[in-house]
Amino acid sequence: MSLPLGFRFASTYAGIRKRQADDLTFIVSDVEAAAAAVFTQNVVRAAPVTLTAEHLKKSKGRCRAIVANAGNANCATSTMGKVAKATAVAASKLLGVPSHQILLASTGVIGEPLDPRKIIDQLPDLHRRLSPDAFEGSARAIMTTDTVPKVAFAELKTDSGTIRLAGMAKGSGMIHPRMATMLSFLFTDADIEAAPLQKILRSIASRTFNCISVDSDTSTNDTVYLVANGQSGVRVKSHHRAAFEAALRLIAEQLAVAIARDGEGARKLLTIDVEGAANDSDAQHLARAIANSPLVKTALAGADPNWGRILSSAGASGIRFDPAKVDIRLNGHLVCRRGCRANFSEEKVQASMEASECMLHFRIGGSGKGRARFWTCDLTEAYIRINAEYRT
Amino acid sequence: MSLPLGFRFASTYAGIRKRQADDLTFIVSDVEAAAAAVFTQNVVRAAPVTLTAEHLKKSKGRCRAIVANAGNANCATSTMGKVAKATAVAASKLLGVPSHQILLASTGVIGEPLDPRKIIDQLPDLHRRLSPDAFEGSARAIMTTDTVPKVAFAELKTDSGTIRLAGMAKGSGMIHPRMATMLSFLFTDADIEAAPLQKILRSIASRTFNCISVDSDTSTNDTVYLVANGQSGVRVKSHHRAAFEAALRLIAEQLAVAIARDGEGARKLLTIDVEGAANDSDAQHLARAIANSPLVKTALAGADPNWGRILSSAGASGIRFDPAKVDIRLNGHLVCRRGCRANFSEEKVQASMEASECMLHFRIGGSGKGRARFWTCDLTEAYIRINAEYRT
Repeated sequence: MSLPLGFRFASTYAGIRKRQADDLTFIVSDVEAAAAAVFTQNVVRAAPVTLTAEHLKKSKGRCRAIVANAGNANCATSTMGKVAKATAVAASKLLGVPSHQILLASTGVIGEPLDPRKIIDQLPDLHRRLSPDAFEGSARAIMTTDTVPKVAFAELKTDSGTIRLAGMAKGSGMIHPRMATMLSFLFTDADIEAAPLQKILRSIASRTFNCISVDSDTSTNDTVYLVANGQSGVRVKSHHRAAFEAALRLIAEQLAVAIARDGEGARKLLTIDVEGAANDSDAQHLARAIANSPLVKTALAGADPNWGRILSSAGASGIRFDPAKVDIRLNGHLVCRRGCRANFSEEKVQASMEASECMLHFRIGGSGKGRARFWTCDLTEAYIRINAEYRT
Repeated sequence: MSLPLGFRFASTYAGIRKRQADDLTFIVSDVEAAAAAVFTQNVVRAAPVTLTAEHLKKSKGRCRAIVANAGNANCATSTMGKVAKATAVAASKLLGVPSHQILLASTGVIGEPLDPRKIIDQLPDLHRRLSPDAFEGSARAIMTTDTVPKVAFAELKTDSGTIRLAGMAKGSGMIHPRMATMLSFLFTDADIEAAPLQKILRSIASRTFNCISVDSDTSTNDTVYLVANGQSGVRVKSHHRAAFEAALRLIAEQLAVAIARDGEGARKLLTIDVEGAANDSDAQHLARAIANSPLVKTALAGADPNWGRILSSAGASGIRFDPAKVDIRLNGHLVCRRGCRANFSEEKVQASMEASECMLHFRIGGSGKGRARFWTCDLTEAYIRINAEYRT
């Protein structure tokens, strides 16, 4: 599969983090593109988030480039606003566009001053080195505690021609996005306006990036960008809309699941399906409560089919349901039937839970049509080690 | 300090749990007593919770005894209702009172069948051995992963004589009480009716047991009982009410803090004070969000003054506030001033955080009068070990 046409990438180590690994990336669309964004709902917001939100308002959803760094969140410092502005201005000058056509994103420690020179001094060289092949390098440059880069691709053949889509994401800890994930950038060469693009992104994010949790901590910097530059020459007409959204959702879901799988210290991915709630929102709330329970997550780590913890965490979610109507399946095995222990082989289910992917099915009997899918990971001692030592 | 008059206690190992340690206790008031209770708000409720709630309604808040067991939650099994009923009936026959004068409580694994014979066969012997001195034995018999028994005592001298108060509690994991703590029993020989007693208990619980969290998991069995048998001969008159409530609150707070301190795997107690919120409820919500953040709790484990995580977790709580007005103090050291890093010595604050008790002060500047105090503990690798292996 080939990348969307008309995008170029470059990354470098700018000395923002201690570890010698690329921490700055410059992503440019050859032409002005439509852009959509969803951001964190944390009331403490990083400067790249607030400034980019302003930019998109001013530009009416048009952009030329993304500048993103790892190693510093550019959040909760007295200079964060100035640093973000200076970065956007420097990038816009190189491209000869207004600064509100630059999207920013940062990830890393909160509250540490970020020296803008580290970024600005590198931008001219990055600009010279921009290349359509350096996509994965960008995905690596936004990693923090991630153990693997997260990328996904799709192609959509329409009656007017082929549209290409690609996405990258990072995220491993402080992952409990309410409106977005830590950082994810989606690209397409489709031709589509900013307004429908924004609508599509919101809809997709609510079913993908907003349905994962590593540790129930919502970050100050969560950001998803979706940039459409039209370079395929294929206009997204109304009869293409559903297929276009489905292709984008596929990419977003792959990236979201990759984040949950790569949760800090995680060894297992857990997919949670809830069925039979009063509505989809209740179902998502239930699934989220199960996903955020440290007791469910440690039981998963220990391959313990402890369905009582699952039932209890759902019961404490705030959503009303009748426990006597609940069936729970772990990897297909019925472990709880109508709110009580089912007749199952502890050893068999335990053995199945040693796999790196586990499936939890929580079904409320009755007439409810609400359903949701949510992803999380196990909680291991490695999570504690990583986070008790993160800064030091 | 002496125990409240007219209460007797007995405990034994009934074989409900594997570990050979007392797991059943019988607590009797010599005379019929007023009783108040608060229970879990989990929609999945154990049989001892639902049955006792019925009992107290029927008896109009009168009781003679408590039967409590550890090792099995008597929850989410098809027989749980029968087991609870049989237990209450057996105890009531020994005492010659109606069964609705028996309060029940269970703690332990969810979803495992509990053999009622294990309890019923032991009750006659426990009844014979009842003694006013066996208070701590009862506190031990309700322990699960607790490392220490939790007890507290107070005496209140009034113009009509002395009232004695005592309490016991257990709880170490699955601790995030919304209406009560895991299990806590409070006793007094004061003479007071059930209705005002219930009011006082609700008010106290909302400031003590409902203000602690170990792991953000709300149990199916959370219960606080408050039993007043009048054996001091001292009537709680209206001008005693405030002092009586204060003395009870002191006991409840000691027990609640003891639970947080003894959180599974915990090495440190964290007291969180929030000030300057719009109202007390917002303040409590903010404090709870900070207390439930795994990133804050792992930073505490690592003695890392990572105030950015504190600010971020508060920001994600859903409560609106202006981050630029927030000051954060750790053990008295100003680490965040008006939403940004304060000028502090990392080494000094770090060293202070090696202590077994830490203090976090979160102040929002401005005119808000809302305040709350909340207690939690650090999150260590031992928590994971305990919970990944709990059942096996």
